[in-house]
Amino acid sequence: MSKGANTRETIIGEALSQAVELGLEGVTLGVLASRLNLSKSGLFAHFKSKEALQIAVLEAAVDRFRAQVATPAFAKPKGRGRVAALFEHWLAWLDGGEAAPGCLFVTAAQEYVQRPGPVRDLLVRSQVEWHGALRWATAQAMTQGDFRKDLDPDLFVFQMIGIALGYQHMQKLMNDPEALGRAHAAFDRLLADAAPAAAASAGSAPDSSPIPPNQAVPGQAAPGQAAPARAPQHETSDS
Amino acid sequence: MSKGANTRETIIGEALSQAVELGLEGVTLGVLASRLNLSKSGLFAHFKSKEALQIAVLEAAVDRFRAQVATPAFAKPKGRGRVAALFEHWLAWLDGGEAAPGCLFVTAAQEYVQRPGPVRDLLVRSQVEWHGALRWATAQAMTQGDFRKDLDPDLFVFQMIGIALGYQHMQKLMNDPEALGRAHAAFDRLLADAAPAAAASAGSAPDSSPIPPNQAVPGQAAPGQAAPARAPQHETSDS
Repeated sequence: MSKGANTRETIIGEALSQAVELGLEGVTLGVLASRLNLSKSGLFAHFKSKEALQIAVLEAAVDRFRAQVATPAFAKPKGRGRVAALFEHWLAWLDGGEAAPGCLFVTAAQEYVQRPGPVRDLLVRSQVEWHGALRWATAQAMTQGDFRKDLDPDLFVFQMIGIALGYQHMQKLMNDPEALGRAHAAFDRLLADAAPAAAASAGSAPDSSPIPPNQAVPGQAAPGQAAPARAPQHETSDS
Repeated sequence: MSKGANTRETIIGEALSQAVELGLEGVTLGVLASRLNLSKSGLFAHFKSKEALQIAVLEAAVDRFRAQVATPAFAKPKGRGRVAALFEHWLAWLDGGEAAPGCLFVTAAQEYVQRPGPVRDLLVRSQVEWHGALRWATAQAMTQGDFRKDLDPDLFVFQMIGIALGYQHMQKLMNDPEALGRAHAAFDRLLADAAPAAAASAGSAPDSSPIPPNQAVPGQAAPGQAAPARAPQHETSDS
C-alpha cells in the first residue's frame, strides 16, 4: 500500500472513531488534523470536502458491517440458524468494540432524518441492502420449512429491526443490565411465532431448537467458512 | 404572562423546533438569535449557557410528551385499552406535527450516548419515567385479567419500545409507506402473545378485541377526560 493510501486509511479510521462517538456531523477536520498530526491542507489533499470524508467513513463502516455481520452469517447453511446468526452478529456489532463503541448507522439515522443529500442517500442504500439481506435469509428459512409458510417476511424483518434498535437504546443510553437478556427473549418469541405449527406446539424451549449445536455459536466458523473479523461477545439465544 | 416569560417561551419553542430537526447539539445560539431577531446577549439574558437552554428545551419536550401521550392514555380505564392508547399516542408523537417533525428523545438518545453530563442525565430520567409508565399500565392490564398472569411486563415493555423505535426508523429515515401498518401488525401480535389463554385461542382478529369501540380512538376523549393537545393522526390497531 502506498504512503498516500495508508494516510487515507488512517484518516478514515480516526474519523470513524470520532463519528461513532459524536455522529458524522461531529467529525471536525480541525480535531482530526490535530489528532493525526496533519495540517488541514494535508487532510484536504485526501478529501476535498467534509462531505467527501463523511461518505468515505460511511463506506468504510458498510464494508466492516458486511465483513463482521452479513458475511459470516451467510456462510452458515440457510434456514433458521442463518437468521439467528444474523441477529447475533448484529447485536455484537451494536455493542461495538474498543475501536468503535457503538453503531454509526443508528447514530447517523437520527442525524440525517432531516438532512437530505448524498450522505443520507448512501445511508438509506446501506439500510436497504441490510434489510434485503434479512428478508432474503427469512424467505430462505420459510422455503427450508424452518419458518411457517404463511409468515409475513417483511413483518418479521420489521420486528427484528425493532428488537435490535430497542436493544441499542436500552443498552447504550439506559445502561440496562437486562437489555441483552431481553433482546434474546424477544427474539426467541419472534422465532417461536415464526415456527411451523408442529414445531410451535412442541414449544420453543432451547432443547427443541432445530439448530445443530455447532451452528449455534456464530463466532465459531466451520472449516472453509470465513471467520468473522471479530467474534461476537454473546452466546446465541439457542445455546 | 410577563414579557420576559413570553420571550423565554418563544426562545424555547424555536429551539425545540431546531433541536428536533438537527439535534440538541445542533441548537446554535447564533442561528436562534437571528431567527428570533434577538441579540446574542439578549438570548444570554434568558439562558446563561447553551447547556441551560438545552435542558430547558428537553424539559419542555417532556411536558409536551406527558400532555400528548401519557396523560390522555391514562385518562382511559386501566387495562388493555390503556396500553393500546399509550402505543397509539406514542406513534402519533413519533410522527410529530408541523411544528416538530420528529421525536427529540430518539434524536437526543443517539447524541448523548457518549456525552455524559446534565443533559444526558435528564434524558435518561425522562426515559425511566416513560418506561415506568408503560410498565405500570402493563401490570394493571395483567391485574385486570386482560393480559396473562405469567407475562413478563419488562419484556413486554422492551418489545413495545422496539416496535416504536423500528417504526420511527422505517418511517422517518426509510420513508417506508408500510411502516405504520407493520407497527400495528407487530403490536397486534404482541397483544395476542400477552392475551390470557382463552382469549389467545379465540384469535386476535379485530372483532375479538375486548376494547369497547368508544375507547378505540385515542383522539376522541370521553366526557370529563382531558383531550390530548393534538389528536393522533392514526386509527388504532383495534379500530
